[in-house]
Amino acid sequence: MSGVIGAYSKDGRDISKIIYYGLYALQHRGQVSSGIAVNNNGFVDYFRDLGLVHEVFPKETMERLRGNIGIGHIRYATTGESTIVNAQPLVVGYKRGALALAHDGSIVNFLKIRNQLEDNGTIFQSDLDTEVIANLIARYHKDNIEDAVLKALEDVKGSYGLVIMTTDRLIGARDSYGIKPLSLGKLGNDYILASETCAFDTIGADFIRDIEPGEIVVIDEDGIKSIKQGEKDKKLCLFEIIYFARPDSKVDGKSIYLSRIEAGRQLARESNIEGDIVMGAPDSGTVAAIGYAQESKIPYAEGLIKNRYVGRTFIQPTQELREQGVKIKLNVLKENVEGKRVILVDDSIVRGTTIKRTVEMIRKAGAREVHVRISAPPVIYSCHLGMDTPNRENLIAAETSVKAIEGTIGADSLYYLSLEGLIKAAGGEKMFCTGCFSGNYPIEKDQ
Amino acid sequence: MSGVIGAYSKDGRDISKIIYYGLYALQHRGQVSSGIAVNNNGFVDYFRDLGLVHEVFPKETMERLRGNIGIGHIRYATTGESTIVNAQPLVVGYKRGALALAHDGSIVNFLKIRNQLEDNGTIFQSDLDTEVIANLIARYHKDNIEDAVLKALEDVKGSYGLVIMTTDRLIGARDSYGIKPLSLGKLGNDYILASETCAFDTIGADFIRDIEPGEIVVIDEDGIKSIKQGEKDKKLCLFEIIYFARPDSKVDGKSIYLSRIEAGRQLARESNIEGDIVMGAPDSGTVAAIGYAQESKIPYAEGLIKNRYVGRTFIQPTQELREQGVKIKLNVLKENVEGKRVILVDDSIVRGTTIKRTVEMIRKAGAREVHVRISAPPVIYSCHLGMDTPNRENLIAAETSVKAIEGTIGADSLYYLSLEGLIKAAGGEKMFCTGCFSGNYPIEKDQ
Amino acid sequence: MSGVIGAYSKDGRDISKIIYYGLYALQHRGQVSSGIAVNNNGFVDYFRDLGLVHEVFPKETMERLRGNIGIGHIRYATTGESTIVNAQPLVVGYKRGALALAHDGSIVNFLKIRNQLEDNGTIFQSDLDTEVIANLIARYHKDNIEDAVLKALEDVKGSYGLVIMTTDRLIGARDSYGIKPLSLGKLGNDYILASETCAFDTIGADFIRDIEPGEIVVIDEDGIKSIKQGEKDKKLCLFEIIYFARPDSKVDGKSIYLSRIEAGRQLARESNIEGDIVMGAPDSGTVAAIGYAQESKIPYAEGLIKNRYVGRTFIQPTQELREQGVKIKLNVLKENVEGKRVILVDDSIVRGTTIKRTVEMIRKAGAREVHVRISAPPVIYSCHLGMDTPNRENLIAAETSVKAIEGTIGADSLYYLSLEGLIKAAGGEKMFCTGCFSGNYPIEKDQ
Amino acid sequence: MSGVIGAYSKDGRDISKIIYYGLYALQHRGQVSSGIAVNNNGFVDYFRDLGLVHEVFPKETMERLRGNIGIGHIRYATTGESTIVNAQPLVVGYKRGALALAHDGSIVNFLKIRNQLEDNGTIFQSDLDTEVIANLIARYHKDNIEDAVLKALEDVKGSYGLVIMTTDRLIGARDSYGIKPLSLGKLGNDYILASETCAFDTIGADFIRDIEPGEIVVIDEDGIKSIKQGEKDKKLCLFEIIYFARPDSKVDGKSIYLSRIEAGRQLARESNIEGDIVMGAPDSGTVAAIGYAQESKIPYAEGLIKNRYVGRTFIQPTQELREQGVKIKLNVLKENVEGKRVILVDDSIVRGTTIKRTVEMIRKAGAREVHVRISAPPVIYSCHLGMDTPNRENLIAAETSVKAIEGTIGADSLYYLSLEGLIKAAGGEKMFCTGCFSGNYPIEKDQ
Repeated sequence: MSGVIGAYSKDGRDISKIIYYGLYALQHRGQVSSGIAVNNNGFVDYFRDLGLVHEVFPKETMERLRGNIGIGHIRYATTGESTIVNAQPLVVGYKRGALALAHDGSIVNFLKIRNQLEDNGTIFQSDLDTEVIANLIARYHKDNIEDAVLKALEDVKGSYGLVIMTTDRLIGARDSYGIKPLSLGKLGNDYILASETCAFDTIGADFIRDIEPGEIVVIDEDGIKSIKQGEKDKKLCLFEIIYFARPDSKVDGKSIYLSRIEAGRQLARESNIEGDIVMGAPDSGTVAAIGYAQESKIPYAEGLIKNRYVGRTFIQPTQELREQGVKIKLNVLKENVEGKRVILVDDSIVRGTTIKRTVEMIRKAGAREVHVRISAPPVIYSCHLGMDTPNRENLIAAETSVKAIEGTIGADSLYYLSLEGLIKAAGGEKMFCTGCFSGNYPIEKDQ
Repeated sequence: MSGVIGAYSKDGRDISKIIYYGLYALQHRGQVSSGIAVNNNGFVDYFRDLGLVHEVFPKETMERLRGNIGIGHIRYATTGESTIVNAQPLVVGYKRGALALAHDGSIVNFLKIRNQLEDNGTIFQSDLDTEVIANLIARYHKDNIEDAVLKALEDVKGSYGLVIMTTDRLIGARDSYGIKPLSLGKLGNDYILASETCAFDTIGADFIRDIEPGEIVVIDEDGIKSIKQGEKDKKLCLFEIIYFARPDSKVDGKSIYLSRIEAGRQLARESNIEGDIVMGAPDSGTVAAIGYAQESKIPYAEGLIKNRYVGRTFIQPTQELREQGVKIKLNVLKENVEGKRVILVDDSIVRGTTIKRTVEMIRKAGAREVHVRISAPPVIYSCHLGMDTPNRENLIAAETSVKAIEGTIGADSLYYLSLEGLIKAAGGEKMFCTGCFSGNYPIEKDQ
Repeated sequence: MSGVIGAYSKDGRDISKIIYYGLYALQHRGQVSSGIAVNNNGFVDYFRDLGLVHEVFPKETMERLRGNIGIGHIRYATTGESTIVNAQPLVVGYKRGALALAHDGSIVNFLKIRNQLEDNGTIFQSDLDTEVIANLIARYHKDNIEDAVLKALEDVKGSYGLVIMTTDRLIGARDSYGIKPLSLGKLGNDYILASETCAFDTIGADFIRDIEPGEIVVIDEDGIKSIKQGEKDKKLCLFEIIYFARPDSKVDGKSIYLSRIEAGRQLARESNIEGDIVMGAPDSGTVAAIGYAQESKIPYAEGLIKNRYVGRTFIQPTQELREQGVKIKLNVLKENVEGKRVILVDDSIVRGTTIKRTVEMIRKAGAREVHVRISAPPVIYSCHLGMDTPNRENLIAAETSVKAIEGTIGADSLYYLSLEGLIKAAGGEKMFCTGCFSGNYPIEKDQ
Repeated sequence: MSGVIGAYSKDGRDISKIIYYGLYALQHRGQVSSGIAVNNNGFVDYFRDLGLVHEVFPKETMERLRGNIGIGHIRYATTGESTIVNAQPLVVGYKRGALALAHDGSIVNFLKIRNQLEDNGTIFQSDLDTEVIANLIARYHKDNIEDAVLKALEDVKGSYGLVIMTTDRLIGARDSYGIKPLSLGKLGNDYILASETCAFDTIGADFIRDIEPGEIVVIDEDGIKSIKQGEKDKKLCLFEIIYFARPDSKVDGKSIYLSRIEAGRQLARESNIEGDIVMGAPDSGTVAAIGYAQESKIPYAEGLIKNRYVGRTFIQPTQELREQGVKIKLNVLKENVEGKRVILVDDSIVRGTTIKRTVEMIRKAGAREVHVRISAPPVIYSCHLGMDTPNRENLIAAETSVKAIEGTIGADSLYYLSLEGLIKAAGGEKMFCTGCFSGNYPIEKDQ
């Protein structure tokens, strides 16, 4: 999981600040590393480091970075990969000049291609599948970059929202199933590409359209050009809808906020239960909880207050302190919970540890009953297409019945939204990757 | 405005971590400086610096700070005072040993007493009124510290929630009107004093009772002792209720959350208006908006999404970028606003600039009408008792009619909750300082 | 031990940079904390922190600090005192305005006066004897500051090179014996006071004269005025000559470099011994070694190379690594040592551990003989007047004979310069405090 | 210019600390970036960043880095190259596993090979010629790494002291002319490779021998193996002798210290001039000055005192302050200079600006005459083999006569050591690259 952005100013306007604020709007998509590359009069300047956008780019760095074309990347990383070597954009020199790439997604045949390249003596300086893409483009680039990108992307199988910068153009590409989102916007005469539309709102750009599954767009001084590369049926990642994207974004024409409200409403319809109060698990369950309350007519209330000041260097309480009752992130609003039948809404259960702690806290605060309602089906499979779900053995629902999970997390009842219900809420037609719930992934894992 | 905390462990348990996590729960009361002082076997060790709790106290510092008695302070500061010299706790040596003080509030006769002390050759090393209190205690301390504190507090006029540490006791004091809050809790055998009860929840302590107006509590190896110093009618600062305290705190027996819900309900009752949607200005208006929606039966929705990643070193957009539409903190959820009659609830209007920008954003996003509802009366007077309101000339309501403000902020209509309505919502009886709204302060400014 | 500097610009020129570069020239006098206070149009602005001058004062801080009068301080500290609370200048407000003080030296009746002040209710916020001086000045200041300073200094017994700043004048004072140095310089129309003349060279100022023992100079818009306060026979600290001051400084008219050369020559005269090579222990013994070589006609050579890149955060080798032979600061130049009779010159032996290690290294590198020559007498007494010598029990010469020390440090022979020889080399007459060697301190320790 | 080190522990001992302290001993060879790579049980872990060794490697980082094989690099960089991307060691994955390289030197046919590689689709992620070497090794590695390294080094023309690490061996290589130094040491059973022998002294290792020109050594569990690759006549860079290497190092059997002493002696012999005092320009001229004094019998003295506390963040004086006389790094010892005929010895003149300023300072301090003596011939050519000399247009001696330079730098006389004299002092035979003085480089610049 990552966030990408690109900008192209035909008039030669400096777009580095646009990249900065755009990345900042995408910060929820990754907090491990941040990077920006710009084309400064034919020279690619860039900086990337571990940290949030505002940590990696202090004022002095941003004053140095200037250019009329630029791309940016923020990275979410699973353990072990959080080294600066894997920070993007990847910037390389090759026979046609310089190339910068920023990639959200996962290439499933990455190792196979890497092995083939290594057999020909290619060296690799990171663990990024993006480095494979850069190598392929460099090899295929004979006459024009568009053909090279097209050929490279025909070789790779997987999910991607990809932005590529050369010293004279900006290229965006989305995988054939549209598993990862990528949208096109316009700010005056400048074109913008971004993982999510909330970036457009933040920088004041207008949303033009989503990049189509399998589409490559090339932006240069002649304007924008579209190339198609084997489009398949759209299979947008459902987790973008229920959890990952920001509620104020629209993905493939769908409002994330309204989809979550509707998922909450559908959850209320499917799981009829009496209760005194509906509350969301902060922050992921809030919107679905509001929808649930609207549909069920049971009053919505805030039941858990989050402390917003936890920083990177915060000292985690020791086990001993935790047992004494020190709990730093959340506090229950006793007034809303005491003696009440609480309906607690969340977007998903992965390992089950967080929801278990939350149920416990609410019960301790005096709730009479705690009913857990999840606005998605059980997560049974681990994603190999770029969503950062843990291995199957760590997915509580992989081998356990709903009844058993109910017991484990200490809920009076537990209900998961049906897959049909979720799809309906998310937009009706079957245009989603449901792999984590159904096991049906549009692209198989590579052997 | 500040937050204070104190802890005393009779059994000699290290309470430094308790102070740390307690301060962290009070972080919303101040973000400028943080400090902790502990009694380490008769030696007062301390550290204070500009920054948030987790910034000022990295792991190494916390490993060094150990003691069975301790106090902590976090400071909200107006411009010009944000120097480390004014960070608290104030720690001084005097003839009876060492003294540490942490103070939330404002002493109105501070300069008069400071001048008297200076006439006798006293030097001052900060701008803190707390330094005056320390000097008075040092002068009055003949036989016991309790009498010295009592005499010192008889000299000062103003508001305070005050914690004082010596090498063998912890003292808490609240001003005669109870303008500033201070509560007593217990964690096993340890006593805790804190500005707000949410600190008790965070550290796992039980709330015992509020310190009474004009009460001094002395905690030592013999337990807890209460001294009274001219109690007056309670005059708790109303801003604690409507804005400052955390919603999960109880102040003087009143739940902040429920008071705000009730203020929202009362606002709905008083200001009957038709609308399609109720939303809160993030984050201060959220709870009142939920209450308003409950009472008015108009659906509650989130209308503005806040970016949570703005850090201290974040680069503010230039004027030029702002005019181009770069807006980094908030984004409107168009889906909830487009074509709608929006009722926007906030807790107060001070300068009017923020609400004006918010109304503008909502309107731009396509709202048909924007009606602003404020869950408190107009702020007409500037506080001299410790609430950080600007000078009168910067208070938009000081000289302007509600009708004119309505125009200035661009709202279709504007309504402020009545003072009676607010007092009723906050607990019924007349036990609040209403100075900022009525001009009736329990303690006059010093000439 | 500390370094102080002050500057006064009659023309209102900003002197903060002068203070900065002057302090930097005095950095050898202390590396623990640095501070600068300036008079910015009647407002005293200041900053101080732990660290070297260039660490404490980054560009942004120096851009903020502006004023036509200023003082600076750098602090050498013994263990336990290295807290920011003890960083100077001390800045206080009192009835006549603001006062900033920077002090090099030690007040022996500090505790007695502090106790008296505490009996009257005075509080203290540091362990600095300077805080006592500030309190006394504040109490004595009736009509003019000069009288107050004079009276305050009459009360204190001890050593000091002191600079004091008010919002309209700069004051310098030296103790009655002139134990601590303080000199006057001029830079255009601006007056400068500094612990050592090398600060004048660095900032391009001309040396005017030394401040006399017992003299107070007051610099204001009317020029410079001198007040005498009980001058005694001069007793300049001999350690300034042999170790502490920078070789390019002149103290009380004496060139430090030439005094050390002469001490080396005298050492050669007193201790006739055959050898093949003379080398200094870096860096303190270098100059005396050159003198020794000149007088003895034995060739001077560098025998030990120092690594200049050891920084504050350098990881010290573990005991295990040290035993394996890891030695990071010094390396022996085998070519100069192998098979040679080495005469190793150093300025003093305090604990004896360093010289022991050095002798060992030289011997391991193949020296045939190692003869240690010290350009000062044995250090037998611990200083209470501001030189940072350890307690007597840690002074190797306090209870041990020269012969025994010779054995302990593993030298083939050991000789200390006679006190008479040192005094002669340092300028002839008896104008030095010889306490550390003779026990005769001009001012006794306070009971 | 750079410094490299490598270590191999057959017994599986952790050698990361050895690398750390060894790099620290080589810090004078580069201050721009530092890096360490280690083999941690078959996994190559590494870290590199801009900064000095102790800045780049805080304690936490060093605790993480563990391994039985390791290499390190410190980098000297000319402007424009100081980006983290060019920090070494370069670490790459390729078909046979992982490879880490650290390189001191310059490959003259770098661009030609890079172009060839790019024609085959290879991408580059840095400006380092080392990246070319890594690509060649990866391509040539069929059966064993030794052959691959041998073939790769046959392709490249230039200077190198190179260390290469795989997960089971350590390889060292020196260019055919031995332009760059590389030595072999032993620490217990562990083998060490380092640019200079002072690293062996620092870590307690014994010097075994120099790596021969054109030699490749391979160290693995079977011990050490030597491969020869077209050895040529030795052409060690003369600048290593006169300036770059540390005086306590031995390069190709020659003591740097003694060579410099001898160069100073030879300089005295060649340039007979009367004078009162000999001093060195700190620090590069010190040793030659001591030699000059020995031979000429004119007394040696320190004439310029250097401030050792200039740090990275030090604020450089403005032009205005500099004109007012602020001079922060050096101060003249007036006592040694006033009225004297000064012989000032330095190792070389490059641009001429520094020596000009120094002569000026000495004259201002009252010297009667200032005679400049340089312990090397005029630098007339710019090095393309890794010594960081500026372009010819910036070399003052490139187009100017000695007489004219004498005038420009304001000396009473100027004399350069003859090339024959220097070669004699450095060891007699013709075994040096004299390109910078004669234009005769053993390897030509590539077209």
